[in-house]
Amino acid sequence: MKAARYYGNRDIRIERIDAPELRPGAVAIDVAWCGICGTDLHEYLDGPIFCPPQGHPHPISGESAPITLGHEMSGVVAEVGEGVDDLQPGDHVVVEPYIIRDDVDTGPDSRDYHLSDDMNFIGLGGRGGGLSERIVVQRRWVHPVAKHVPLDQAALIEPLAVGVHAVERSGAKAGDLAVVGGAGPIGLLTAAVLKAMGCTVVISELSPLRREKALETGVADHALDPREVDVVDEVRRLSADGRGADVAFECTSVQVVVDTLVDALRPTGVLVIVSIWGSKGEIDFQKVVLKELDVRGTIAYVNNHPETIRLVEAGKIDLSPFITGRIGLDGLVDEGFDTLINRNETAVKILVSPSGEGL
Amino acid sequence: MKAARYYGNRDIRIERIDAPELRPGAVAIDVAWCGICGTDLHEYLDGPIFCPPQGHPHPISGESAPITLGHEMSGVVAEVGEGVDDLQPGDHVVVEPYIIRDDVDTGPDSRDYHLSDDMNFIGLGGRGGGLSERIVVQRRWVHPVAKHVPLDQAALIEPLAVGVHAVERSGAKAGDLAVVGGAGPIGLLTAAVLKAMGCTVVISELSPLRREKALETGVADHALDPREVDVVDEVRRLSADGRGADVAFECTSVQVVVDTLVDALRPTGVLVIVSIWGSKGEIDFQKVVLKELDVRGTIAYVNNHPETIRLVEAGKIDLSPFITGRIGLDGLVDEGFDTLINRNETAVKILVSPSGEGL
Repeated sequence: MKAARYYGNRDIRIERIDAPELRPGAVAIDVAWCGICGTDLHEYLDGPIFCPPQGHPHPISGESAPITLGHEMSGVVAEVGEGVDDLQPGDHVVVEPYIIRDDVDTGPDSRDYHLSDDMNFIGLGGRGGGLSERIVVQRRWVHPVAKHVPLDQAALIEPLAVGVHAVERSGAKAGDLAVVGGAGPIGLLTAAVLKAMGCTVVISELSPLRREKALETGVADHALDPREVDVVDEVRRLSADGRGADVAFECTSVQVVVDTLVDALRPTGVLVIVSIWGSKGEIDFQKVVLKELDVRGTIAYVNNHPETIRLVEAGKIDLSPFITGRIGLDGLVDEGFDTLINRNETAVKILVSPSGEGL
Repeated sequence: MKAARYYGNRDIRIERIDAPELRPGAVAIDVAWCGICGTDLHEYLDGPIFCPPQGHPHPISGESAPITLGHEMSGVVAEVGEGVDDLQPGDHVVVEPYIIRDDVDTGPDSRDYHLSDDMNFIGLGGRGGGLSERIVVQRRWVHPVAKHVPLDQAALIEPLAVGVHAVERSGAKAGDLAVVGGAGPIGLLTAAVLKAMGCTVVISELSPLRREKALETGVADHALDPREVDVVDEVRRLSADGRGADVAFECTSVQVVVDTLVDALRPTGVLVIVSIWGSKGEIDFQKVVLKELDVRGTIAYVNNHPETIRLVEAGKIDLSPFITGRIGLDGLVDEGFDTLINRNETAVKILVSPSGEGL
């Protein structure tokens, strides 16, 4: 089968490899669509980060480069392994792409399996990837999706789950005023979750095209240009009692955005840091203390896929406007990565059809 | 009556002023003891901060310097105003020293009246102070204390309530491993609350005398010298699964303490910023994200006095070892402030008897 394999920095090759073999307790999935993630771009431009380099096998997967890429996938069950009796061939599924030690509790009540030692992702740390025609995944990490959800939209359930978890971390509730700093893919999808749950959503974003996208898709009630308006004043004006936002989401890893969000929050407000920071950031502890703010980190998702899927199945979030491109596996670097790196104001999510069937 | 009055930076005078008049809905209290707080020292050395300077009356109290100082007080009810029927002369009481706008909800379910606009403190922003022989306080801010609690210890209920609120902000529960950075008065009292609720408490503190105090009073199970031991390694070693502390409290406003506590926390851990910071601090957002930490500010207290008083009445916290000095009003600056500024390793809480009766 065809697969996109990461060999190292700026070295991704489309190759023919053997299809993975089905195992007991696992599910063989024919990949329909796989999204390209910012993490994939980082791995390509600045990596290896998550991908274990050759000679340094990942402690759980035991694999090292070359590694099959892709962790935002939807597909159709081809075959189920021994002991899997609640899925059958033809079912539509998505993957929660975790590589986690066997002795970690990944049950429905766990709130921290994603923070366990040596955690990595399928499609980055081994165990196949969605940028190949077929993948075999342990049943635990396979989630069924109703067939009325188009498979292309289902491929966005993984990044949407990041937004669902970020919103969960914030404790936001219906009626809250929420500010999202940055309208990249994760900012937009976080805003979509907030909007779906009944928050008023303000997005602060420099790019006019991204602001337009935020308004067009209906995920933001207000899209502000921080060069044109005083975001803090505007957020306070929009709040019922003039004291500011209830929750804020930092989706840029830019210092000034943190400062703005800290000021835009009301006393007892919650700031969620969603983006991955390469360096330390500054925070005004005096404001954190005097307003009793909470600053909370969030990473990926933990038992958020069922709720995320329900939101999409129920039509509360329409993922179609976030799909801005569809390509084949051969165009991954030239069409996919290149567009996201150089024209990232208009591109939100580019989907890859590994078999080419969806194109 | 005699009162300590703040005129400005390094200008505190012990003067004779008229005793305050009783009002309807208020309680006249003969002050037994009043503690000297770090905030009083800041006001003296670096102020005015909370105290409204002459010509700039506080928007709620309408008062400006000279202001009667003292907000950590215990006393005996002398007289009750019209409409106060649940307290009587002779009752022992403490004061929750807030100056808050009349239209703010200060009911028992409010979690944020202490963060309301223009909030200030009795004894800093006007409305009399505990560093005088008598004070008249609205019933809402007067809390009865059982007579078996000595009045000198009752004067420490106010700073203890700061610790109770900080611990409440952390979400700590019995059995948790807690690290407190800094064993000044607030660090010690926060540790006392953690210990009383069944946490294992580790204190990190440079001063050997303060470490000794933390162990002697029983509020810490371990007192570490960060120059001698690797606090992060030691905390991980003390944790059940080797992953670190559940909660941490920053009580120093020192950057390296924040860094240490961030590293000492387990994934999903909570860092509470208790100290007031004069400058911005740095925080490693990548660690906040990858460990999903919560960084939470805390200030003063909000509906925490009843619980704090119950802890002391029930004998769960013995406040006597934290009283390290007793002085009269005339010695406030020379004996009180001077000791706290120059010999603050041995002094925890110095109590003032405004009438001199307790000495």
